[in-house]
Amino acid sequence: MNSISSLGQKAKEAEVVMRSMSTDQKNKALRVIADALLFHSDEILKANQTDLENAVAAGMSPGMQDRLRLTKERLDDIAEGMRQVADLPDPIGEIMDSWTLENGIDIRRVRVPMGVVGIIYESRPNVTPDAFSLCFKSGNVSFLRGGSDCINSNIAMVHVMRDALEEMDINPDVLLLVEDTSRDTVKEMMRANQYIDVLIPRGGAGLIKSVVENSTIPVIETGTGNCHIFVDESADIPMALEIITNAKTQRVGVCNAAESLLVHRAIADAFLPALADKLGKTVELRGDEIACGIAPIMKRATEEDWGTEYLDYILSVKIVDSVDEAIAHTNRYHTGHSDAIITSSDENAEKFLNEVDSACVYANVSTRFTDGFMFGFGAEIGISTQKLHARGPMGLKELTSYKYQLRGNGQVRG
Amino acid sequence: MNSISSLGQKAKEAEVVMRSMSTDQKNKALRVIADALLFHSDEILKANQTDLENAVAAGMSPGMQDRLRLTKERLDDIAEGMRQVADLPDPIGEIMDSWTLENGIDIRRVRVPMGVVGIIYESRPNVTPDAFSLCFKSGNVSFLRGGSDCINSNIAMVHVMRDALEEMDINPDVLLLVEDTSRDTVKEMMRANQYIDVLIPRGGAGLIKSVVENSTIPVIETGTGNCHIFVDESADIPMALEIITNAKTQRVGVCNAAESLLVHRAIADAFLPALADKLGKTVELRGDEIACGIAPIMKRATEEDWGTEYLDYILSVKIVDSVDEAIAHTNRYHTGHSDAIITSSDENAEKFLNEVDSACVYANVSTRFTDGFMFGFGAEIGISTQKLHARGPMGLKELTSYKYQLRGNGQVRG
Repeated sequence: MNSISSLGQKAKEAEVVMRSMSTDQKNKALRVIADALLFHSDEILKANQTDLENAVAAGMSPGMQDRLRLTKERLDDIAEGMRQVADLPDPIGEIMDSWTLENGIDIRRVRVPMGVVGIIYESRPNVTPDAFSLCFKSGNVSFLRGGSDCINSNIAMVHVMRDALEEMDINPDVLLLVEDTSRDTVKEMMRANQYIDVLIPRGGAGLIKSVVENSTIPVIETGTGNCHIFVDESADIPMALEIITNAKTQRVGVCNAAESLLVHRAIADAFLPALADKLGKTVELRGDEIACGIAPIMKRATEEDWGTEYLDYILSVKIVDSVDEAIAHTNRYHTGHSDAIITSSDENAEKFLNEVDSACVYANVSTRFTDGFMFGFGAEIGISTQKLHARGPMGLKELTSYKYQLRGNGQVRG
Repeated sequence: MNSISSLGQKAKEAEVVMRSMSTDQKNKALRVIADALLFHSDEILKANQTDLENAVAAGMSPGMQDRLRLTKERLDDIAEGMRQVADLPDPIGEIMDSWTLENGIDIRRVRVPMGVVGIIYESRPNVTPDAFSLCFKSGNVSFLRGGSDCINSNIAMVHVMRDALEEMDINPDVLLLVEDTSRDTVKEMMRANQYIDVLIPRGGAGLIKSVVENSTIPVIETGTGNCHIFVDESADIPMALEIITNAKTQRVGVCNAAESLLVHRAIADAFLPALADKLGKTVELRGDEIACGIAPIMKRATEEDWGTEYLDYILSVKIVDSVDEAIAHTNRYHTGHSDAIITSSDENAEKFLNEVDSACVYANVSTRFTDGFMFGFGAEIGISTQKLHARGPMGLKELTSYKYQLRGNGQVRG
């Protein structure tokens, strides 16, 4: 009934509708759907309550339960986010380039939707309306597969949103939810190249790895951030302490939090005791041999620590002899997400900015700024750690493709 | 010894070299390598002779043998192509966007190389130097895997090119060839995510399908073109005949050749006899029932014909009742490569240009212009038929990614 191929055929039909929808129509629809989610909040919260009860019965941790929980306030935030997306400029139709060939052919590169965007995610039910609003505004059909933990919440929200679309005479198949959360079905979805144009996994490292390995559809890899901060010999120590504290502790469970600290040997004696004073009580510091010698509060780091994204109050600390060693170590162990140098040397800043191979490279700024909202995109579907198509924070433009339109008067190739 | 992982480690080291190479150094190297290929043409042609003898012994068709053959003249063309790439502007380092946040952080989006570009191709040995020159100019390491048919030619050319690099004190691992052409090794290459940033298959539909299905590395799908031309009711008939003749017969074996013709019913009586006159002797026309009724020279097309890329002197012909039907049929059966409308109606032209979902959509122009050289890119690594990253002809810019550089003076997130 609602197999992947049946959903896929609906998606392909709805794609045509999305391609020719006006900006006004999209914006109005998003505002109506935001209202509908609030108007039907009782039934959504009731469905969410079922998910939570199942989660408790299955022994889910309190932290995971919190991710799963919807409240009146969270629904308000979801609706407000949807209205904000309505207020953003429409990326579709932009003429990105244009030129005329000598033979008179007029070439235009025009921004168009991707088509059908598949999103595979876990137990955060807010992803459902958030992802839909971004896909919809960028002219795409949403083909969503959330986790089994929040299936009742997802079904309830999608039901409300599709009803609202239908009342506006918009084909509700612009929003499709895979209700069968079995492994076989998700595997089928990952190979549905004829129906889905791009697949974006959102969730933990395991989910992302599974999608990258099993999908034949083009994937945008998002997520894991083993972010490094290098304190150069000329660093301003108070600035370094403030940036590291912010990057490590402002929110520990996020992909742009700092996980590893590199310290130039020439500043280590002055800097490490100050670091231990500032962070030693809240953050477990794991140092290499030299670092532990200078600041005995540290535990000894192992090789494994350099490659670990802790997402916790832990920071690895390594001493390096030069900016070159810092760059080489970063490029070896990071995940290509966000890395920073703290330095007073313009030369070393530029070297680090140019040679560290990450989506976002910082000089004298906290890595916590890698975020579509912070960048001013007004929205974010994820942070890409691959180099194909999009890198770093992805907003509406990153959910689009382009086509070439060529206009002439009978030109043929000689 | 030269396993994928050993080549991959070399590639990752060479990537660092490529990232900081100056434009002058790259251009000079390409010119020196072009000269080296000509200087060593005897040994290259000798190796190619071995490949040809093996091919003859294996019963390879004359057409395929011709693809495999290198000559003095073809080496001249290869060297000239490489010099032309040296003359193109360097895409790397371009500041694509820049803005300053209210908190003073300066954000720049800077064009950077992809890193390591894997190319999997078949029996055309010219792909080896051509692909290398484009990857090299765009700052990427070339990780090449050609077909077993031309392995001797490839080894000889890569040997000459790597020697030339070494003589210029450039790490020769910026050009790597997978010499073991076994199936297991190519499968291993397609899963070497830690070493290869993007994989581009170049060849027939079977090769491309295999790479799309087996690769865990992001793929840029290139190639197959089931290109449609729609003759609208208001079409200028002589213009339509000239465009169709060009698109079908100027070169039949190419992806931008026309394969299927849609004709508006209102013009069919006037147009089809003229078409049969003009093309009926050289091209096998396969029509639907109505078309065959009007022009009895045609054979009857089957359902399979609509979806077939002939790459031959065959054209399918279908009658449609409207531009909407033409668009729907095209979107159903085409491969998203290149499609054209021939019309005197601006309204229908715009409708077709906007609603046909192809990389290149034409109004009153031959589909044969879908080509990086024709577009003015100065080079072409392939024609993408996917929507992620690049669509249509891919030149140097399409072999690049970007990174964000953020410069500040101690900003932290509140």
